[in-house]
Amino acid sequence: MNFQPLILNAGAEKRLRAGHIWIYSNEINTQLSPLKQFEAGEQVCVQDARGKVLGLAYVNPNNLICGRLISRDIKYPLDRSLLVHRLNIALALRERCFSENCYRLVYGDSDGLPGLVIDRFYDVFVVQISTAGMERVKADIVDALNKVFTPQAILLRNDGKMRALEGLDSYVEVVQGEVPELAPLTENGVSLVAPVLDGQKTGWFYDHRENRARMMSLVKGKRVLDLFSYVGGWGAQALAAGASEVICVDASQTALDVAAENARINKGETRFKGLKGDAFDICKALTAEGERFDVVVVDPPAFIQRRKDIRNGERAYSRINNFAMRLLSRDGVLISGSCSMHLSQESLIDILRGNSRELDRSAQVFALGHQGADHPMHPAIPETNYLKACFMRVLPGY
Amino acid sequence: MNFQPLILNAGAEKRLRAGHIWIYSNEINTQLSPLKQFEAGEQVCVQDARGKVLGLAYVNPNNLICGRLISRDIKYPLDRSLLVHRLNIALALRERCFSENCYRLVYGDSDGLPGLVIDRFYDVFVVQISTAGMERVKADIVDALNKVFTPQAILLRNDGKMRALEGLDSYVEVVQGEVPELAPLTENGVSLVAPVLDGQKTGWFYDHRENRARMMSLVKGKRVLDLFSYVGGWGAQALAAGASEVICVDASQTALDVAAENARINKGETRFKGLKGDAFDICKALTAEGERFDVVVVDPPAFIQRRKDIRNGERAYSRINNFAMRLLSRDGVLISGSCSMHLSQESLIDILRGNSRELDRSAQVFALGHQGADHPMHPAIPETNYLKACFMRVLPGY
Repeated sequence: MNFQPLILNAGAEKRLRAGHIWIYSNEINTQLSPLKQFEAGEQVCVQDARGKVLGLAYVNPNNLICGRLISRDIKYPLDRSLLVHRLNIALALRERCFSENCYRLVYGDSDGLPGLVIDRFYDVFVVQISTAGMERVKADIVDALNKVFTPQAILLRNDGKMRALEGLDSYVEVVQGEVPELAPLTENGVSLVAPVLDGQKTGWFYDHRENRARMMSLVKGKRVLDLFSYVGGWGAQALAAGASEVICVDASQTALDVAAENARINKGETRFKGLKGDAFDICKALTAEGERFDVVVVDPPAFIQRRKDIRNGERAYSRINNFAMRLLSRDGVLISGSCSMHLSQESLIDILRGNSRELDRSAQVFALGHQGADHPMHPAIPETNYLKACFMRVLPGY
Repeated sequence: MNFQPLILNAGAEKRLRAGHIWIYSNEINTQLSPLKQFEAGEQVCVQDARGKVLGLAYVNPNNLICGRLISRDIKYPLDRSLLVHRLNIALALRERCFSENCYRLVYGDSDGLPGLVIDRFYDVFVVQISTAGMERVKADIVDALNKVFTPQAILLRNDGKMRALEGLDSYVEVVQGEVPELAPLTENGVSLVAPVLDGQKTGWFYDHRENRARMMSLVKGKRVLDLFSYVGGWGAQALAAGASEVICVDASQTALDVAAENARINKGETRFKGLKGDAFDICKALTAEGERFDVVVVDPPAFIQRRKDIRNGERAYSRINNFAMRLLSRDGVLISGSCSMHLSQESLIDILRGNSRELDRSAQVFALGHQGADHPMHPAIPETNYLKACFMRVLPGY
């Protein structure tokens, strides 16, 4: 195979040698290898300024991240064969960690497949492609899934926000089999369903699996409030774990309807209530009504999408956690999550510290949670470690 | 009750108001409240520069940290009654999280009892007092334990290094009952024993409980190397989880003898081997012999004790993890721990990233672990969050 060279500026190879796999457009020697000569998604042979080969990447001349390394060995380009190999490697980790075939099978960069996410719901595979390089091998991805698994259905949820940056259009496509409206899954031993066709992202957020497992150990006989519940990932598992009552709060009635179904599946329909509306407003209303909860889960969407949002985002995290803390009964537990990569664990803890002081409470952080093993972190790419969950016991101030 | 005032300099109250409980000697207005007028361990009424009361603290004029806040309400000094109250609060958290009465019952500052650590081995209580303020109420601590529990024995392991800074002597004393040479305990459902009388610290490190639980899910049928094993906390639990072979490495033969006993208790004596010696040297020897392990646990003592040790300490962490990584079989798992508060999780990951690149391996961090719920973090005191465990999958480089 013969790939055109992509030649880096002097020094730009360092980050790649340190393990990273992204190449920025300002790192390219555009005299020797003009970016515009490449098609979006084309594979290239990456070379340092001295001509030393660093590996194969796919490029996109239209993006700030103009290249992503696929392989440090130029014998292995991104094709069906490599996809099968990497799928098998990814699968081995999941099979080691999980007893049910419900998990994120491929987590992009961390699984050596930048631009590709695959969530597995037994034999229903939901694929998200976010780069032109991956879009090019779409047919190979489908082939590779058929080689490694026996898919009942394959769904492309190619409607992610990042696609526009890559010049890709947005679409949802069933490429194989029949995709159920609500795909069954099991998480932490609990039977659930996910709206894979029209829910958020792939339909389910597997990343909080371990944090939900910990939550389950804390809620038996307890009253639980699940803020930003989406389809009740937390709430339904709380019901399965014996919570006396669960209130799910979400802005989407469609999401709450699925949450109700997840409650019903777990024999929790009489202990379940869905409240549609803005989580901030509903917290205020619940506080005004004197409601109290033993456990409050705060799992908001990313309030910080970009670095410039940090200040406003931190303020939003602070406000919602303040509201949540007010709703806790004596010796209650606040489970505060954040999927904002730009919010560090330290900052989240500090926000909760500030809230507890403002409300004159004493607090203990008795667990710090992260994304589950099916969302491994790439050790050279801090961005791949984004999820936090802080388990805080909140006591009267002393 | 009438306590002498301890008057802070202007602005020095801010950290306390933010939730911290330590007072540094340079924050005191020594004109108005000369430190030398206080006895070591005496309780005082802390006031800001305007005379506003902040709470009660105990002081030690001889230490840089010259005061620790006990209570923000001056009605509650540190006495038997407060100790009983705080013990009950601490107990409630442990009972919520653990099914067996084996845990750190009191974790100092985080449980509102600065200078006090109590590890519980069923009804054997091992107490560590590290400040003059706590030493003063030693008899009350024993009384409070008897009020809340029915101790079979109470042991004071007052031989910690921090005591010298407080002007306290070092001693070990059985203050009640009979303390067994090896105290039985259960961790993650596994029966074990700890040398409470003459082992390290209280005899057992409960802090890695959750990380060991995760390790157990990964070792069935696997060959495991446990570096810096001490009494086999990791190794014996690996045997209980079905590891095919476990080699524990420690510099202390006494520790290895207890590790062997823990292996025997878990019917693992034929799968267990203890190697006495320096972990670095033994790694080199094992590598030379071509040995390979599916899982290697690196759980060293704190290589970084003080800020000034960071560079050398990081080098030591890097070296031992490099050695450990070399000993891994294909698709092996490195479990790398650090109890150095000055080594951040990010730094530990970066060290492992560097190792993996140096050895041309691809790596995935599939879990990040912390100290267990019986070592809660005080949200205003970052020092109370010290333990890290990084679970890394190590693959051939790609």
